[in-house]
Order: sequence, then C-alpha cells, then structure tokens
Amino acid sequence: MTERQLVDWIRRRGKGIGDDCAVASLAGARDELLITTDMFIEGVHFLREHPAAQCGHRVLARGLSDLAAMGATPKWFLLSLALPPWAGAGWVKRFCGGMLKLASRHRITLIGGDLSHSDRLTADIVAIGSCPHGTAIRRDGARPGDGIYVSGALGGRPALPEPRIALGRHLRGRATACMDLSDGLSADLPRLCRESGVAAAIDRPLPAAPGATLDDVLHAGEDYELLFTARNAPRCHRGVPLTRIGTILRGRPGKVTCFGRPLAPLGYDHFRNRS
Amino acid sequence: MTERQLVDWIRRRGKGIGDDCAVASLAGARDELLITTDMFIEGVHFLREHPAAQCGHRVLARGLSDLAAMGATPKWFLLSLALPPWAGAGWVKRFCGGMLKLASRHRITLIGGDLSHSDRLTADIVAIGSCPHGTAIRRDGARPGDGIYVSGALGGRPALPEPRIALGRHLRGRATACMDLSDGLSADLPRLCRESGVAAAIDRPLPAAPGATLDDVLHAGEDYELLFTARNAPRCHRGVPLTRIGTILRGRPGKVTCFGRPLAPLGYDHFRNRS
Repeated sequence: MTERQLVDWIRRRGKGIGDDCAVASLAGARDELLITTDMFIEGVHFLREHPAAQCGHRVLARGLSDLAAMGATPKWFLLSLALPPWAGAGWVKRFCGGMLKLASRHRITLIGGDLSHSDRLTADIVAIGSCPHGTAIRRDGARPGDGIYVSGALGGRPALPEPRIALGRHLRGRATACMDLSDGLSADLPRLCRESGVAAAIDRPLPAAPGATLDDVLHAGEDYELLFTARNAPRCHRGVPLTRIGTILRGRPGKVTCFGRPLAPLGYDHFRNRS
Repeated sequence: MTERQLVDWIRRRGKGIGDDCAVASLAGARDELLITTDMFIEGVHFLREHPAAQCGHRVLARGLSDLAAMGATPKWFLLSLALPPWAGAGWVKRFCGGMLKLASRHRITLIGGDLSHSDRLTADIVAIGSCPHGTAIRRDGARPGDGIYVSGALGGRPALPEPRIALGRHLRGRATACMDLSDGLSADLPRLCRESGVAAAIDRPLPAAPGATLDDVLHAGEDYELLFTARNAPRCHRGVPLTRIGTILRGRPGKVTCFGRPLAPLGYDHFRNRS
C-alpha cells in the first residue's frame, strides 16, 4: 500500500478532505470557515540549532500559507507545543516572539493551545480563516486550456517564507484551482491535476530563486509560493511576480510533463520505501 | 520560571485563553465555535504496545472531553499523524477504526488532516463543536458557596474513556464552572479555582473506581470525568452518577484543602524540575 492509497482510504471515511484546508459552515453565518493543521517536528522539519524566532515564524507561515491557498482571510490560531528538556523558557519566548510578529502582520489572533512534554520538540498549529460562502479556491477546478501559474521564485528555501495572503484573496473568483507549494512543484502539481481530473504540461521557463538549481526549482519544498490555474493572470500582483509556466491538458489525471519528459516527484513514500 | 508562569506569559499575548476550548464567533452565526487541540505522543501519552484501536479512541476522546467540559455539541475534527517506521498501513487503519467508531457515536465528522513522518508516533487532534452564543461553560464562574461535583468514578484509568458529552450539554446554564479531569483532581481543581479567583475545600467522600487507591483518585490523569461547580445538582444524569465532593470558599485563588490539609498536585513541571 502506498501513502497515497492510505490517504485515499482515510479520505473515504471523512468528508470533503483533499484541499489545503478543511471547509466548514455554521448555520446563519455569512462566511464559511477554512481550517488547517500542520505538525512541525524536531529532526524532521527543523533542527534545534535553528534560531527559535525563525522556527516560530515558519510554523505559523505553514498554516497561513494553507489559508492563502484557498483565498481565506486569517482569523484565529491555536498552538500546541511538546517541549524536550533542551527547550527552556527563553527558547519558548523567542519562538513565540517570531510567531506573534508574523501573526500581527496578518491580523491572526492566538486563541488557545496546549503545552506538554516530549523528547523531541513538536509543535502543531491550527490556523482558521474565513471567506464568503462558496468562494474558497479548491484544487479540483482546473480545466483543459487553463494556464498554470506560480507566484514569486522557486527553490530558494527562504528562512522566513512570507505567506501569500493578499494574493490568495485576490485570486478568489479568478483562479480555477490553487494550492501552496509546500512539497515542491514536482509533488504538488500532480496533486492538483489528480484532484481536477486533468493532465499538465510545463513548457515555459520556471522562475528560479537566486542560486537555485533546476532540481531545487522542481523539487524543493517549503517555498510557500502559490501554484494556481486560471484563464489568464497579470504579470504581477502587489509587487509579487506571477509567471505562467504551462498549460492544463486533457489526459490521465495527475500526469505532468516538463518540456516533453514525464515529471516525477522526488518525495519519500512512507509505505512504499520500506520492506 | 515555572510552567504556569510561562503559560501566563503566552496567555497575555493571546486572547481568551484559559478554558478547555478556545471560543470564536463568526458574524451572523447563531452558535459560537469551541475549538480544542491535543497532542498524543509515543512514549509520553501511550506506548507502541498499546492496541492501535484503543489509541485511536483515546486521541479523539481527549478532544471530545474538552468539548464536553464547555457544554459543546461536537461537529467536526481534523487529525494530524506523524508516523515512525514501525507504524504500517495496518496499524493506521486500526487506529482510525477505533477513532471513527467513537466519532460516529458522537456524530463528529472527520473533515481534514495531515500525514507526515517522525521517529516517534505523534498524533494531533483538532476537535470543533458549537453552542448557542454565551452558553459555553467556562472555568471562571465558580462562586463561594457553590457545591463542587464530579461525574462517574475517579482513578480508574479507563482504557476506553467515554467523553461526557450529554452531561456537558445538560450543565449549560446549570453549572457555574466546569472542566474535564485530564490531569487529575489535585492538578485540575486548583486550576478551576485560580480561574474563578476562589478557594475550595474537599470535605466529602470521593467516588473511587474499583481498585483505585486514594492516590489514584486524587492524582491519576486521563479520567475524563467532568469537574463542575453549581448551586445544586441531581445525584445522577442519564445513568452517570454525580457526586458532591466539597464546597467553593472565599480565600487565596487556587488554594485547595482535602479534609483540612493542603492538596498539592503531583504533576511534573517542565521548567521547575530541571537545573
């Protein structure tokens, strides 16, 4: 069983799973809720040598980026922290400081959380946003003929990624599908195509961050740029470049070519890469 | 710095933190949202030898118990799982099976989540419920003269705790304060008293689970019974015994006596118990 098959097994037991955020509605409310949760584990997503403030920024940025990908306005977040012996009060204050600085810039309010213990630092963030009913941008709306676009530059592995909240809101009603690039273009574009039941061809130059190799541009995670499809898009939104990189095609859902060759993700599959 | 001081430092930077759930409102909605998040870590909250279905049950039960403590009706949940090499697809299916069985009993729907990797199994649950505006039961409403009550029996460390959802909803408008017993009576009753700015005396027999010692009854965590204060309460709600164990008093906030002697929690303080 591959990881994707297991995720599909879980999805069939839930409701509406498959986008960057879960969508939920309360009776009478004008807006619907977008909810996302992300774990951040020492040794997997960061090392203890990383500056604490930067870690705090990145944990919240992951959640905000999921909200951006669906066009949501950020509202509230919760933080769970499991602390190992090496993480003292000073570390936690710097970590929270980095997180709260980003929170205040995007007007998202800390409303709860949980503190416990572990031998590896583990943080989990719940980020909640809202958008008017039926306007959230999903992954399943890409249609043959749509252009494929990315924001910013890829492969830069920025220490302090800036979630594309303003761009995401701008794309409501304009993009046919959207997601954030958290696992790299080669893993994320096939996902968007599978959800939409379409294929894709990358056939234009990719915007690369300074110093990034082609492997970085195609496979590096944690760019937190937006990947979206649309009939057309401007070259730039509020100073953020938007680059058309290819076209959505009819074909086997999830099939992606890059300059005529099949594009395969370099990611790790928990359930396939073991005996 | 103690853990409580650090939690206070974080609380001052957030909004409305201090109850079992965070409370949030959407414009126009009749109900408000109750949101809780809990981490469950291998070696801290469970061992890999534990049956997977039981682990799944307990992860969701923790979230549901937080909703019960505030009188919420369960609505949606999200699950994040970080898997170590030993946890294969079979384990994950049994884990999800135990969780979804409890979910269907309490009509809470899985709407999203996240799958990643770690060397220790880590699960994080986000549980979301609702209740009419202003009816959520908080920890800060206990007043001198109120009776102190617990549901069920304490110290039993049940393998499959049953969250007290129906009782929590019944207590809306009846209890002055409520929380769930996740860390044991000796840790949780002082918390409720601190939030309410009152003291408390335990002066009546405590309801003990079969085989539980007095230490178990006072200090064992994960009972997931409700601790609440009220002017009065029946002896039983839908077959669940309710036992008066003491009285709320004027006095130093958080001071609790048990048959005339100070009651101290046996818990571990991350920031005090280290050099």
